[in-house]
Amino acid sequence: MNTVADLRNASAVLQWDQETYLPPKGAHFRGSQLATLSELAHEFFTGDAFYELVKELSQREELQENQRKNIELTLYDIEKQRKLSSAFVRKMTEAVNTAWHQWINARKENSFRVFEPSLDHLVQLKLDEADMLGYEHHPYNALLNDYDKGSTVEELDGIFAGIIPFLRDIIFKIGEKPAADDSCLKRHYPRNIQWDLGMRILKEMGFDFEAGRQDISEHPFTTSFNPRDVRLTTRIDEYDFGNMLWSCIHELGHGLYEQGLPEDQYGLPLGEAASLSIHESQSRLWENQIGRSEAFIRHYFPVIREYFPETLSDVSEEQFYKAINKVYPSLIRTEADELTYHMHIFIRYELEKKLLSKKLKTSEIPEYWNKLYKELLNVIVPDDKSGCLQDVHWSHGSFGYFPTYSTGSFYAAQFFYFLGQSLPGMNEDISNGHFNRILSWLRDNIHSKGRKYESGELCRLVTGENLNPRYFKNYVLNKFGSLYSLER
Amino acid sequence: MNTVADLRNASAVLQWDQETYLPPKGAHFRGSQLATLSELAHEFFTGDAFYELVKELSQREELQENQRKNIELTLYDIEKQRKLSSAFVRKMTEAVNTAWHQWINARKENSFRVFEPSLDHLVQLKLDEADMLGYEHHPYNALLNDYDKGSTVEELDGIFAGIIPFLRDIIFKIGEKPAADDSCLKRHYPRNIQWDLGMRILKEMGFDFEAGRQDISEHPFTTSFNPRDVRLTTRIDEYDFGNMLWSCIHELGHGLYEQGLPEDQYGLPLGEAASLSIHESQSRLWENQIGRSEAFIRHYFPVIREYFPETLSDVSEEQFYKAINKVYPSLIRTEADELTYHMHIFIRYELEKKLLSKKLKTSEIPEYWNKLYKELLNVIVPDDKSGCLQDVHWSHGSFGYFPTYSTGSFYAAQFFYFLGQSLPGMNEDISNGHFNRILSWLRDNIHSKGRKYESGELCRLVTGENLNPRYFKNYVLNKFGSLYSLER
Repeated sequence: MNTVADLRNASAVLQWDQETYLPPKGAHFRGSQLATLSELAHEFFTGDAFYELVKELSQREELQENQRKNIELTLYDIEKQRKLSSAFVRKMTEAVNTAWHQWINARKENSFRVFEPSLDHLVQLKLDEADMLGYEHHPYNALLNDYDKGSTVEELDGIFAGIIPFLRDIIFKIGEKPAADDSCLKRHYPRNIQWDLGMRILKEMGFDFEAGRQDISEHPFTTSFNPRDVRLTTRIDEYDFGNMLWSCIHELGHGLYEQGLPEDQYGLPLGEAASLSIHESQSRLWENQIGRSEAFIRHYFPVIREYFPETLSDVSEEQFYKAINKVYPSLIRTEADELTYHMHIFIRYELEKKLLSKKLKTSEIPEYWNKLYKELLNVIVPDDKSGCLQDVHWSHGSFGYFPTYSTGSFYAAQFFYFLGQSLPGMNEDISNGHFNRILSWLRDNIHSKGRKYESGELCRLVTGENLNPRYFKNYVLNKFGSLYSLER
Repeated sequence: MNTVADLRNASAVLQWDQETYLPPKGAHFRGSQLATLSELAHEFFTGDAFYELVKELSQREELQENQRKNIELTLYDIEKQRKLSSAFVRKMTEAVNTAWHQWINARKENSFRVFEPSLDHLVQLKLDEADMLGYEHHPYNALLNDYDKGSTVEELDGIFAGIIPFLRDIIFKIGEKPAADDSCLKRHYPRNIQWDLGMRILKEMGFDFEAGRQDISEHPFTTSFNPRDVRLTTRIDEYDFGNMLWSCIHELGHGLYEQGLPEDQYGLPLGEAASLSIHESQSRLWENQIGRSEAFIRHYFPVIREYFPETLSDVSEEQFYKAINKVYPSLIRTEADELTYHMHIFIRYELEKKLLSKKLKTSEIPEYWNKLYKELLNVIVPDDKSGCLQDVHWSHGSFGYFPTYSTGSFYAAQFFYFLGQSLPGMNEDISNGHFNRILSWLRDNIHSKGRKYESGELCRLVTGENLNPRYFKNYVLNKFGSLYSLER
């Protein structure tokens, strides 16, 4: 397991380097180096020799609880990977490679038709994959399971049914109020000062820079080579202050989770994150529940104004708080606010579900996409680039990934409620810039558990119940009700 | 071979990261990741299966010249590595690990005695290694061969005998002249401006920044993951202008060599550098023959003054040229000038030779070291830290490495002479800041050959004769004779 982990983490270093410092011509051989590392890791992990060993171990009776769990999860992972033949994996790798290049081309030409054939091929392969992995009820379940074990269409349908109509309603009500003025965020915020401010806030919020760093990349991400070496990236737009800082805080949430995983479980399942949903719950909790809260702005607006005294001289704390929480339907998922965001996800979820149940043909994607954007967000999609070509995920063969962005947000609201219950005075902590009690609670209740529990189990353990849309709805009603003076 | 190369190059990425961006706590798991990669590479490369294949291939009759050479060198490398048992390699790794830590401790306590036991153990292991590898005449030959195949005590004794008395004499004569004034280099040169200037000069001298980059590290080095991704590092001392720029140019020489290796031979011996001596010949040629030449300063002094107009307002081109070529015996090898430098190397060479022939005990190193520094450089060594503890090499188990620094310089002088012969007007090229003809010649005659020829063979091919001290001596007499108005 150590060998496999070392190979996978070496891959992660090479990928991090690829996104941050790789010179352009270096991409050629880097591809081959990455392929070699992942093939070797796959061979060691799924080979007969290791499989037999793990099977034998799993029969032992003298195992302690954590040992048993590690072996059980390892066996599960091996058997899942062994269901996919090497030939299939290679076919998928090639298909993804083609699809990614065609996605780039399609975006250049602003035409979904360029992407369509390779996407269609990928969907077919994904259906084959679902068949090989096995599923109940819906082929999409096999793929959802990949990002959030145990997640199903049945569960997600229920959750979205509890939230989407509610959000539609509240977004509509907000739309009838005067739009928030966020022009103060679109002034000139020099690059270096944004960077320094971001670094300061990451540090103050608890990121351990002795065990991690932040760099610049085209798209922000977090990666980890072990709990003592966690890398965040960000990007800076000099004319959009909203862009960097909350992206920093979002990645911080991912990074704190990774720094909090139990390092004595390095290479073992219990040293991994619980799921992508739970990972996203951590990034969303720090970004939204904390970073976009009134208490946070009470503490940090004066600090931010220290960094940009002239730019913000005529802006009040209240204006600033409203600006960073502006709700406004838009075209691009990654730029959406806390509420309309979930419409973007729901649209992709509906689409993927229909694609995989063959109720929608690949060729029908743009039309269906645009229709849903009109219906759910009242937004006209002008072209494919700002429509169904905006996200990279499908070109990577990632189907079933998007829902974790929403469930992550819903878990965040639920965890945050119980966090507040367990820590009286939590709001005062935030408005005083003290985050250590919050971080300790997350460490104890979530981070340190690693992958011992599936998302749902962890949620029950921490909050006493399953994922319940009520928490997210209450959070939204409280915050945005008062922000936009909505009637309850 | 591709798998092995990918693993080794992935290791190189992890090592580069370790020297440039790794957060402090990340070192712990990084060590294990590096060990895994190198063990796997070693297993694949020296395993019976691959060995048998290569042996079988080497018997084929239909091979082309380059194929034959690749197979012959691969077989040589495998058989050499197979002479060392896994148990021995592990013992050596542990001994090096201990020795390195003890070297750090010894430097902290400024006491060779702290380092002595682990160094002594290493020397014993190196003697065992020499026995396993096999040698003629002198055990040191087995180790010299590691860094420069074919290099021997007999050859090096001859070369040093031709050069050291000559250098002693000329250094003595220079010592009788008024010392050059290099105080203009010790003024304040702000970090960012030094960096910008360095980047500009690297670019103008031919480094392809699409296929490489430069970063900051504690000790400057060059590493390469393939010819399209070559990484240089440097360090900046704001109060020592001589420190960074010529270190940049030195690493540039290494980097240009790596960028010029034939990329269609990736993973094969012909895609590697010829030897450490030839590698060093490239760095020295760019640093000294070109970078410290009158022609170079004629072109670049006005540029440098553009970057530091006030700092250099009272300095003339001639003063500057003399300052960067100041000859002055000193304690620290890495800070030594072009001439006294070889005394530092010769002392280490004599010491290593005696250690490995058991004519010197490890415990006697400081005394012998200090005696040679007095004799050869007329310098009093005040303590171990600035004496025999100054270099990291021994703690890495590297015995036989130092001589390549001198032979590299001597090759540089010889190559540079023939370069001038082949390119009439070369000096005008340099004084006009044009380096493309020089680089092309090095590409054609040296870089593109990869490891096809050993150092000596390559030297004969390029210059028509063996390494001949005459070229270095003539270079020194011409340059320093006129700099210090010495009589011929």
